Amino acid sequence: MTRAIVLLSGGLDSATTLALAAQRFDCYAMSFDYGQRHGVELDAARRVAAELGVVEHRIVEIDLAAFGGSALTDPTIAVPESATEGIPVTYVPARNAIMLAFALGWSEVLEAQEIHIGVNAVDYSGYPDCRPEFIAAFQVLANLATKAGVEGRGCTIRAPLVQMSKADIIRAGIAAGVDYSMTLSCYQPDRLLRACGRCDACRIRAAGFADAGVADPTRYQPAE
Amino acid sequence: MTRAIVLLSGGLDSATTLALAAQRFDCYAMSFDYGQRHGVELDAARRVAAELGVVEHRIVEIDLAAFGGSALTDPTIAVPESATEGIPVTYVPARNAIMLAFALGWSEVLEAQEIHIGVNAVDYSGYPDCRPEFIAAFQVLANLATKAGVEGRGCTIRAPLVQMSKADIIRAGIAAGVDYSMTLSCYQPDRLLRACGRCDACRIRAAGFADAGVADPTRYQPAE
Repeated sequence: MTRAIVLLSGGLDSATTLALAAQRFDCYAMSFDYGQRHGVELDAARRVAAELGVVEHRIVEIDLAAFGGSALTDPTIAVPESATEGIPVTYVPARNAIMLAFALGWSEVLEAQEIHIGVNAVDYSGYPDCRPEFIAAFQVLANLATKAGVEGRGCTIRAPLVQMSKADIIRAGIAAGVDYSMTLSCYQPDRLLRACGRCDACRIRAAGFADAGVADPTRYQPAE
Repeated sequence: MTRAIVLLSGGLDSATTLALAAQRFDCYAMSFDYGQRHGVELDAARRVAAELGVVEHRIVEIDLAAFGGSALTDPTIAVPESATEGIPVTYVPARNAIMLAFALGWSEVLEAQEIHIGVNAVDYSGYPDCRPEFIAAFQVLANLATKAGVEGRGCTIRAPLVQMSKADIIRAGIAAGVDYSMTLSCYQPDRLLRACGRCDACRIRAAGFADAGVADPTRYQPAE
C-alpha cells in the first residue's frame, strides 16, 4: 500500500474523501485547529478518523484568527443565514493554500505519494480556493517546492470531489461506508454537535441528502 | 504609500529585504515561531522590525516541528559544520510555501499590494523553495487562491534578492541603512545571540562580508 495524506475537517466532504482514499491507500489524516468558531468540528474529525482506520491523525494548531477577515474566525462578523452573491463572508483568506502547504511538508517526511483534499467547486463556487484551477496551480507549486519534486518522485494533489454534486458525493460516501451521522457541516453547531439547520453549510447539506434520496442523519438543534 | 508584507526571520537576507521595501512601502513584517532551535532569531527579528519602523510586526506560531525532517526543527538531526552536496539537512519541508501562504492570508485582510521574501538562489541553491521558479509558481497560485486575485487586484510576490550574491546583498543593505549587527544568521547561536562561526549560514555570511569588503559586525562565540 502506498501513503496518502487526507485533509480532514470533520465535515461531509472530507469524510467522503477519506473513505474513498482508504480503499486504495494507507491514510494519514491532517486536521487544523485554527480558532474556528465551530471548534467541535475537530471532535467530528477525530471520530471520523478513528472510524475509518487512519494510520495517524495529526491536528495542527494554526493561528488564522490572527488575520480576522472571515465570519468563521472573527467573532465580529455574523454567519449569514441566507444565500449571498460573490465570495461568502465565511471564506477564510488563503485557508486551503495554508492547509495544503502543511500537508506538503508532512508528505516530504512521510514520503507520501498523494495528498487528498475534499474541495468542491459545485456547491461552494464562491470560494476561490475550491476551484480546479487552484488545485492545478498548487500541484505545480508542490513539484517545485519539495525535495520529492526535485528528485522526480513528486506528490500528487487530488481533489476527487471537485466536480461532483452534493448528492453524488453522498451516494459515493455511503457506498464507501461513511456514517454521516458522525460528520458535522454546520457553521454554528451547539455544544452537543447539533446542527443549526439554517446556515449555508446546513442548507446545502440537507439539500444534498434530499437530492440523493437518502434519509438525512444529521442531528439538528430543537426549534426555538 | 501602498502596503507590503515582508517575511522577516531576523537574518541578513530578510533584514535587507525589509530595508529595501521600507523605501517604497508601508511595511508589515511577519515572522514565524516554528520551534526552530535558534529561537533567539525572533529577538533579532523584533529588533530589526523596530529599527526599520514597520507599521506592525506579527509573529505567527506554527508547528513545523511536528513533522520533523529537518536539522533546524528536529533535535535528533545534527546541524552540519561543513558544506554538503544536494539538499541540506537544514532544509525545512515546505517552509517557504507555508510562510508565503500565511502572508497571502494576511495580504487579503490588509489589502496589501505586495509580499516580499528574502530567498536567495545563489548561496542556498540546495533549497528547492528558494528558486525563482518556485516564486513564480507561488505567484500563479496567489492569483487563483484569493479574493484579490479573483477581483483582479492581485498581490505581487517579490523576491528581490533571489539572483544577488551575498556581497551584493550586503552592499545594498548598507546603502539602505541596515545595521547588520542586529541580524542573526547562525543556525546554532548561544543565548547571548552570538554566532558559532562554523555552520553553513555563518560561513556564507562571513564570506559575504569579506567579498563585499565590509567589516563583519557579527558577534561570535569565544573559541573553546
